[in-house]
Amino acid sequence: MVLPRVVVIGGGFGGLQVVRGLRDAPVQVTLIDRRNHYLFQPLLYQVATGGLSPANISTPFRALVKKQRNTRVFLGEVQDIDMAGREVVLAGCRHPYDVLVVATGSQPNYFGHDQWMALAPTLKVAEDAISIRNRVLSAFEIAEREPAGPQRESLLTFVIIGGGATGVELAGALGELKGQTLRGNFRNIDPSTARVFLLEAADRILPTFPAGLSDRAVKELKRLDVTVCTQSLVTDIQPGVVTARVRDTSDVTMRAETILWTAGIKGSFLGQRIARSCQGEVDRNGRVVVDPDLTIPGHPEVFIVGDLACCRHQTDKPLPAVSPVAMQQGRYVAHLIQARLRGKSRPPFRYKDHGSMATIGRGAAVADLRKIQFDGWLGWLAWLFVHLLYILQFENKLLILIQWAWNYFTRNRSARLITGRFEEPCE
Amino acid sequence: MVLPRVVVIGGGFGGLQVVRGLRDAPVQVTLIDRRNHYLFQPLLYQVATGGLSPANISTPFRALVKKQRNTRVFLGEVQDIDMAGREVVLAGCRHPYDVLVVATGSQPNYFGHDQWMALAPTLKVAEDAISIRNRVLSAFEIAEREPAGPQRESLLTFVIIGGGATGVELAGALGELKGQTLRGNFRNIDPSTARVFLLEAADRILPTFPAGLSDRAVKELKRLDVTVCTQSLVTDIQPGVVTARVRDTSDVTMRAETILWTAGIKGSFLGQRIARSCQGEVDRNGRVVVDPDLTIPGHPEVFIVGDLACCRHQTDKPLPAVSPVAMQQGRYVAHLIQARLRGKSRPPFRYKDHGSMATIGRGAAVADLRKIQFDGWLGWLAWLFVHLLYILQFENKLLILIQWAWNYFTRNRSARLITGRFEEPCE
Repeated sequence: MVLPRVVVIGGGFGGLQVVRGLRDAPVQVTLIDRRNHYLFQPLLYQVATGGLSPANISTPFRALVKKQRNTRVFLGEVQDIDMAGREVVLAGCRHPYDVLVVATGSQPNYFGHDQWMALAPTLKVAEDAISIRNRVLSAFEIAEREPAGPQRESLLTFVIIGGGATGVELAGALGELKGQTLRGNFRNIDPSTARVFLLEAADRILPTFPAGLSDRAVKELKRLDVTVCTQSLVTDIQPGVVTARVRDTSDVTMRAETILWTAGIKGSFLGQRIARSCQGEVDRNGRVVVDPDLTIPGHPEVFIVGDLACCRHQTDKPLPAVSPVAMQQGRYVAHLIQARLRGKSRPPFRYKDHGSMATIGRGAAVADLRKIQFDGWLGWLAWLFVHLLYILQFENKLLILIQWAWNYFTRNRSARLITGRFEEPCE
Repeated sequence: MVLPRVVVIGGGFGGLQVVRGLRDAPVQVTLIDRRNHYLFQPLLYQVATGGLSPANISTPFRALVKKQRNTRVFLGEVQDIDMAGREVVLAGCRHPYDVLVVATGSQPNYFGHDQWMALAPTLKVAEDAISIRNRVLSAFEIAEREPAGPQRESLLTFVIIGGGATGVELAGALGELKGQTLRGNFRNIDPSTARVFLLEAADRILPTFPAGLSDRAVKELKRLDVTVCTQSLVTDIQPGVVTARVRDTSDVTMRAETILWTAGIKGSFLGQRIARSCQGEVDRNGRVVVDPDLTIPGHPEVFIVGDLACCRHQTDKPLPAVSPVAMQQGRYVAHLIQARLRGKSRPPFRYKDHGSMATIGRGAAVADLRKIQFDGWLGWLAWLFVHLLYILQFENKLLILIQWAWNYFTRNRSARLITGRFEEPCE
């Protein structure tokens, strides 16, 4: 008997749930990803600020599915999907499928200004985190060599664009880095004089959280000497210069050698390809509109889960692009595939919202668990617990816990490496 | 009162001992390094084989000398030394010195075949380890995609050139990786069929160890399915092909996609510059011949410590390029500088040889402590203890110990990331 072939593209929060959910199913599973490891993205900002090593938040896919004998891992970049021929197209090879799950997630959205990508990099994969770490640490190093003046000030100015959870967490970590971790490390500069700005176009940061928690987050960021600028829409980025329109009126220009982008995401490019070949619809963020069972119209054999899916049958707005949605969708699809094999069906997908959280440095976080809201210490403990719970592999849990404990007591961040060539300022 | 300026170039085993030894001295110390972190090189092979993260064996210099207020760290690459003007020359700036310590160590020696550098990379800095890890893991990934045949065999062949401690340890770790860590991870290939060759030109591996321990190391490597080829002098390297002359007679050619070089080192390029400007002597390995007090002839204000120093007043042969020599020399120079400040002098440098060790995978090592020799388990425990002792920072000791324990019990290596772009084979 030939087993149905299930191909899953993308091993993030959503895709991995599909793969793991099919471990005992009578199917052949192929997981295709362009990286060899699962990445726990919520902690990526800690890699970018020298608190953790990339390997601590990653697990090789092969280690994860080693004992799942119906599953193979294929490392490669999908270029297209031949929906008529039911094949996934890669450079030099094709993978036929009976059921396809597309879980390729999102990519940064520069809202039509793709030239900003190089000037204001984003934080999405391990390499981004390493590159931001190199940039941030190098900025302090070059500032130490620079005489006092506007160039040194610019080196010691960090602008984060986008006040969602990633922006808030990154800003908090940079605040800690400059105010605590690097204290006493330099002789010419005082790192605590570095300035961290968090720019948000909306009228409050963490706009998806209750307003009370946004206020609390602003207070916690202030404690870490981070300047929060709301109603500040970035209108231009040039090398080392950001321009923002404040309250729809005046334009403000800031010099900053380090500019980071966490202002928006859009569906990965495969979404456009899929929508085009099935006359489907993508929303304005490049997400593919899916049916209530997460398939695309006219193609019951193609599922989309996670950030790439625009799922709007349950609520007025599409479901948010967050990991709990992706994971629940992944589990739903794994169940639905198995139900279908038994000739059964399943009710439409329903997202159960347990809330969301964001941490703001040592001992502070905001957590919105819908019925109950935490902040400060209690929020931080809740954040810590939930994140450790979801980290895969006990070894990584332990390694992260030790580094957090160390950071907590000594304020040190041990993974402060500049790798690659340090770019020296030349006169 | 203007304090004497001591400039130390290079923060490896030797340079760091000088810096730390001067912590209470009435001098201004400047440590110049092109990297921002100290690296514990003896464990670099474990980073290259996915057992540890780079940060686990690194410590930022600034964290190390944070409380040493007479010391500043300068990140930059030294281009030359102006010995007449007593200045260190970097891109765009100069550092004047009263006392100079050059501890820039060694670089790989390809014995006149510099074109081999790109074909057979070496293991010297953190980036080398990451790049080797990417190469090795990618070779298995590409092999998994490849049909059976000579190309797949070549992908699954790893050749290490040079049977010194680094070569032996790297070969052992690759043996474990293919035979144990990756077991069950693939569906098309059996990683244990991969072949690991260790080529050594001399008639035994670990030539600086007693012959009995060399034999023991060969046995342990055999247990890990590593093929040791002694009296095999590499005469040519082409992309994916190594040619070796065996026993001065026949030429043997092997196809291997991964070729690594640990066959020799030579003094860093600053040695040549120094020797030229003071009419000094360099030996055939590019090491600068030093006086018994580790200064260079005619320049009592310039010290050379570590791999770059050719120190031959104590024994017939120059002292070996190993970390204990560098550390003892560093401590000696720190004491001598302080003695001179008090108008005193010190007897010539004397190296105290406590022995050497090399590990060969889980639970096996050879240790030559001069009076007593260990191998197997006891050697391994001695190796473990000594290495943990010399790792800086308690946090890193703990993180390494956990990962070793994990590796010991599960044979897993958790830092198996392929970072950067996975290079897909195209047809």
